[in-house]
Amino acid sequence: MPYYIGDVIKDQGKLIARTPEKFQEGGIDVWLQTRVVGVDPTKDIVELQDNRRIPYDFLVVATGTSAFVPDMPGLTLPGVFSLRNLEDAIAIKTWLKEKSANRVVIIGGGFIGLEMSEALHAAGIHTTIIHKDALPANRWDAALSAIMLEELQAHGVEFVANATAQSIEKGKSAPLRVTTDKGEYEGDLVLLAIGVRPDARLAKSAGLKIGQSGAIAVNFAQQTSIENIYAVGDCCESFHKVSRRWVNIPLGDIANKQGRVAGRNIGGKPLTFDGIVGAQSFRLFNLECAATGLSEQEAVAAGYSPASNITWGSAMAPSLGVRKIGLKLIADRSSGKLLGAQAVGFAGAVGRINVLSVALWTGLGLDQIGYIDLAYAPPFSAAWDIIHTAAQALRRTL
Amino acid sequence: MPYYIGDVIKDQGKLIARTPEKFQEGGIDVWLQTRVVGVDPTKDIVELQDNRRIPYDFLVVATGTSAFVPDMPGLTLPGVFSLRNLEDAIAIKTWLKEKSANRVVIIGGGFIGLEMSEALHAAGIHTTIIHKDALPANRWDAALSAIMLEELQAHGVEFVANATAQSIEKGKSAPLRVTTDKGEYEGDLVLLAIGVRPDARLAKSAGLKIGQSGAIAVNFAQQTSIENIYAVGDCCESFHKVSRRWVNIPLGDIANKQGRVAGRNIGGKPLTFDGIVGAQSFRLFNLECAATGLSEQEAVAAGYSPASNITWGSAMAPSLGVRKIGLKLIADRSSGKLLGAQAVGFAGAVGRINVLSVALWTGLGLDQIGYIDLAYAPPFSAAWDIIHTAAQALRRTL
Repeated sequence: MPYYIGDVIKDQGKLIARTPEKFQEGGIDVWLQTRVVGVDPTKDIVELQDNRRIPYDFLVVATGTSAFVPDMPGLTLPGVFSLRNLEDAIAIKTWLKEKSANRVVIIGGGFIGLEMSEALHAAGIHTTIIHKDALPANRWDAALSAIMLEELQAHGVEFVANATAQSIEKGKSAPLRVTTDKGEYEGDLVLLAIGVRPDARLAKSAGLKIGQSGAIAVNFAQQTSIENIYAVGDCCESFHKVSRRWVNIPLGDIANKQGRVAGRNIGGKPLTFDGIVGAQSFRLFNLECAATGLSEQEAVAAGYSPASNITWGSAMAPSLGVRKIGLKLIADRSSGKLLGAQAVGFAGAVGRINVLSVALWTGLGLDQIGYIDLAYAPPFSAAWDIIHTAAQALRRTL
Repeated sequence: MPYYIGDVIKDQGKLIARTPEKFQEGGIDVWLQTRVVGVDPTKDIVELQDNRRIPYDFLVVATGTSAFVPDMPGLTLPGVFSLRNLEDAIAIKTWLKEKSANRVVIIGGGFIGLEMSEALHAAGIHTTIIHKDALPANRWDAALSAIMLEELQAHGVEFVANATAQSIEKGKSAPLRVTTDKGEYEGDLVLLAIGVRPDARLAKSAGLKIGQSGAIAVNFAQQTSIENIYAVGDCCESFHKVSRRWVNIPLGDIANKQGRVAGRNIGGKPLTFDGIVGAQSFRLFNLECAATGLSEQEAVAAGYSPASNITWGSAMAPSLGVRKIGLKLIADRSSGKLLGAQAVGFAGAVGRINVLSVALWTGLGLDQIGYIDLAYAPPFSAAWDIIHTAAQALRRTL
């Protein structure tokens, strides 16, 4: 019995999520708009907001994340949104439509802010991104983030670098104004996209062990510190196979896997979730942006001695033209093992990062990666793929 | 000192291969149009056609393949070509141009014939493929090859199935006519594309050990049975990491790797070539076609007990539309290990096959593959990638 299930399943008549009816047909009770206020694990009981007390044999906590909200005035003004779930997305769409919005200010240039700028551009809405650093998507190397910035600007998105939002007020030329240390920006809507954090409040109040990351601690069966309580998705930790630490990386594909693993174990068909390697991607207009494994800072924190390089190449054979791709590799000096990779390109970036994710999953070193067998054909790569040339070049520097 | 280097480096003024001058600038002698007729490994001497005898410390044999030529009348008629190397390609282009060709008959519907049909279509030339089986590209499962046939036909390529070419003569409406057991087909040019075989003739005459595949036997350093003679590329064998047999798979990326490994060893910086997993791909109009590992027949021959499935899905999240992709997985019943994969799709097929090639390289089983961490974002996959769903589905059948 879930903590909370959003009841907005259709958007303007279009089915955008599996309906509760589907579950109900399968004999599963779905209680919408039903908030859990407490869990008593000594009595195996969930307490609802309406004071009902529901017993359980097993409990699955899937409380997701909450949007990180900065400390500034004006956050409660109408038209200020954060984006965490389906309801938020639909509320944003409704607001944009009702206000015939044509200008939006996004606070935060991480991948959610970037993806939103693309979606707003597609809807013909001018977008300003206010970002604390010089370049978007801090996780990526500056040389790769610079390509993202070019792509943003090529599509008319305004990027305000090194800026801190200080307050939101009513605007003059538009309903809302964001004041920053780099000037004022007005729009019909303000989106807070400075990150999310795991929502472990219920778990904490129930006495479940919380990990270093602030997310719920689980084992490989997705079991929490209390035997018959499981946790899955953005609210819990995952084992990172490269850093060998338990981390919180809130991504939908990880949540899906953990959900199935918990279900299997509760259902008596044991299955373990081996972990993650940190693979992630997003599209920014015509650009594929992807990363996997550890950044250099994360590698140092995990005790590795990282070396890295950036290789520029093409996603196809040079004789067929150039579709620029940049690939950063990070490897351990002592063992030559791959630790992480980042790629940005107009084609082929996600494919390369997926290959390197399997390499991380299996602990391959640069020696192997430099000669690994990939499906070469001129439309898809050079005879030496950029993965090979990058791995060999980095290997030579160790 | 190479056996043979083609001397056609520029095509209509455009540079299409590294010039011999480049090598010569580096102090390397390049003797064009110089045919080796024999090797005397007892005296470390190469005999040239002009009777010169050249001593060597190390010899690298890189004699490539020869096109497999069927036994039928008319093969020597002008306008009948096979495609093995750069000179062949340029001779074909020159012929097509000189004859203002608008019809070509290709004998053979393997991937070379298919790729050629696309190139000819791009040049506005109508193409007929005569193929011995019901569907093109026999290596791929019939369900996947059927997609290729649809794509061929959608682009106006005529595909004559289950047909055997019997003779080539002068034509009536066009210069050449191919007579088959399914009718007669005329064109300005006939291309023989029924396969290649390793050219191990020189190696054999020199007494080098030839493998079961008919290609030159080598070790992991690319050394042949004679210590100071190396062999690289299409003329030699590679170790197949899945079948654990030495095979001959003539592909340019493998040749590149072997060449570098041989060079390193001869140069005194030892390096081994670990082998291949059989990754390969080609583009057919808008379709990506890729395969890796073993087919079911090859798996049986290697002693495995293969099970397989075909999964249909999309290369992106269903909410963004459907870009159809079909994925066949082959796994071993006893161990659950992946043995091979084939994919055909309008996007993402090569990317999936590359991921599964690393899985084969590292010996992953379906349990791991079903939950492996890939860089999910809706433009590039569903939250459960087709790789995950296919692996889980096949695992359930074992």
